[in-house]
Amino acid sequence: MKGVVILGSTGSIGRQTLEVISAFPEQCAVRGLAANTNRDLLLQQAWATRPAGIWCGEGIEGDALPPGTRPVARMEDLVDLPGVDLLVVATVGLAGLGPTLAGLRRGIPVALANKEGMVVAGALLMEEAARSRTPILPIDSEPSAIWQCLQGEPHPPSRLILTASGGAFRTRPLHELATVTPEEALRHPTWKMGKKITLDSATLINKAFEVIEAHWLFGVPWERIEVVLHPQSIVHSMVEFPDGSVKAQLGVPDMRLPIQYALFYPQRVPNASLPRLDFSKALTLTFEPVDPERYPCFQLAVEAGRKGGSYPAVVNGADEAAVDLFLQGRIPFTHIPRLLRHALEAHTPIAHPSLEELLEASAWAFREVVRVATEGR
Amino acid sequence: MKGVVILGSTGSIGRQTLEVISAFPEQCAVRGLAANTNRDLLLQQAWATRPAGIWCGEGIEGDALPPGTRPVARMEDLVDLPGVDLLVVATVGLAGLGPTLAGLRRGIPVALANKEGMVVAGALLMEEAARSRTPILPIDSEPSAIWQCLQGEPHPPSRLILTASGGAFRTRPLHELATVTPEEALRHPTWKMGKKITLDSATLINKAFEVIEAHWLFGVPWERIEVVLHPQSIVHSMVEFPDGSVKAQLGVPDMRLPIQYALFYPQRVPNASLPRLDFSKALTLTFEPVDPERYPCFQLAVEAGRKGGSYPAVVNGADEAAVDLFLQGRIPFTHIPRLLRHALEAHTPIAHPSLEELLEASAWAFREVVRVATEGR
Repeated sequence: MKGVVILGSTGSIGRQTLEVISAFPEQCAVRGLAANTNRDLLLQQAWATRPAGIWCGEGIEGDALPPGTRPVARMEDLVDLPGVDLLVVATVGLAGLGPTLAGLRRGIPVALANKEGMVVAGALLMEEAARSRTPILPIDSEPSAIWQCLQGEPHPPSRLILTASGGAFRTRPLHELATVTPEEALRHPTWKMGKKITLDSATLINKAFEVIEAHWLFGVPWERIEVVLHPQSIVHSMVEFPDGSVKAQLGVPDMRLPIQYALFYPQRVPNASLPRLDFSKALTLTFEPVDPERYPCFQLAVEAGRKGGSYPAVVNGADEAAVDLFLQGRIPFTHIPRLLRHALEAHTPIAHPSLEELLEASAWAFREVVRVATEGR
Repeated sequence: MKGVVILGSTGSIGRQTLEVISAFPEQCAVRGLAANTNRDLLLQQAWATRPAGIWCGEGIEGDALPPGTRPVARMEDLVDLPGVDLLVVATVGLAGLGPTLAGLRRGIPVALANKEGMVVAGALLMEEAARSRTPILPIDSEPSAIWQCLQGEPHPPSRLILTASGGAFRTRPLHELATVTPEEALRHPTWKMGKKITLDSATLINKAFEVIEAHWLFGVPWERIEVVLHPQSIVHSMVEFPDGSVKAQLGVPDMRLPIQYALFYPQRVPNASLPRLDFSKALTLTFEPVDPERYPCFQLAVEAGRKGGSYPAVVNGADEAAVDLFLQGRIPFTHIPRLLRHALEAHTPIAHPSLEELLEASAWAFREVVRVATEGR
């Protein structure tokens, strides 16, 4: 019986993680739940799964909880519960970073759905994982695909090829991008996801974040990580080996598959509710290179990742602010990369930042982007 | 240093095997060479690689050979040479069957490029491999892809998906198939191969043979092996696992990759002369179901495989004869399946045939097809 703590249990990945766990009542049990908002759903989840500990950003009353469930003071206190074998981090933004480090320090394997933490603090997280000899397992579909393709291979890969859907505006004429609406940007062609990540797909910064994540998770040099647009989202990513052979992982887009893989790794558990690829119908898979003119945020963020230090934290905070501003209708879509570039240029970099310095760099970039967008330079 | 014997060294796979070996002079050495025909090339190969033993179907004189190379009486005597670590079987038809069994009996791993042997005598070969605990490694690109995808996976696959180019006549109007010429049939869209196998691609019987081969090699039940047409021949095959996740192996069509993989398994050796997939250009991969009307030989041969016993030997011999007759211009393309069906119906099956009975069943089917095509029923 694997004891699982889920941070961000009311979000899309959190809910799907609970769905997978509920399909395997003999193999998995929920030990802790945390959510920043949506207390009603969190309470429902608590009554359904009876965790030992719970945390809510909005606060939570002990007497609303099922018997045996106690609120904890801070999210990271959940890793101190007895019988925790896996920490699923599915929070938004950087809220999960502290608990992730706390989990690693206690030797609890971390299943990471949140890429912002790895983008901002990849060096710190991998350092802690190495020190505590505790694995970080990806839940996102692209790094999960790479992880699956690497199984049983005795050599480091010669190349990672991350696939990207290209988001809502892959075929939109470039001159129209200045006038696209938030509603249009939120129409993702293949995946149903949260707002921030759907926007990040439209700018392709999401894929730059995955490049950074893959660099850290798999220890692959930057120049060996490529991104290719693949609008059908069937091939979730590919790995090339030293002899030139390429392995790909494919599947119907459904987050429950990578969630389940991380939960039961290295076992693969049959789950009749997961969809399967159907080869009795014609299928076309297309791949095309990334157009840098269409996706300026992509290159900006990859560059920030390569520079390292506090730069990735800045691009993270700046993107969060810029996406907020766009969703509020306060800036056009095409101002997102301009604001990122401004924040990166205005930033005074720190080569080996602490966690606090990283969080501050991200928060500074957020404020700076809001300030510039509101007041101008 | 791995000592290699190559049976069928003057054929397409044999020559490419020698090319790969010559790129790794510190890791591989040729211990033995055998070819049925093309003595001049065989002699050239012998002078270049200095094997200890050699065999030629046309006979070979000791004084034409380099010092240290001796002719052997029978092809299978090559496995008795000292220092043989791998037997590469790249012969045509059933000539390699006896030597394959001899190699397995001596505990020499066999790298199998020839699928006819596995089609006709899969049960016997796997029995001998199990008894001697000696692996049979595939060299053909599709089973090699499956083998690569299975690495590091703890569960048997839930499905194998073999890809097929569809051969020369995938898009030819059906009513024209009766009048296609041997020259047209020999124009394979993606692979440059021998005549028999190129014809077998046009009828898709080649893929039925791979279904049979995969059934035996990987121990996968018939109903879990699918075939899908993939005209680009980039995805060499796929494996689905119990959770529904699919892995594919991709590469530019080049037999040297699976040859090299079998030679160095589980190592993957960098080889600059092997082509790599280029994702900087647009790439389209299509998959479509097999049309049974276009490829009647496919279903006939898979059925023969499923029935087992002496039936696969009959389909093998009948196909060899029918392809010969078509290449000689003596029957139309569309008579190939008719002749196969006739041979299968006229055959008196043996449930648990010996090697001799299998060879005889195949030879009988060959004669029967030639007889019927010449004399009519």
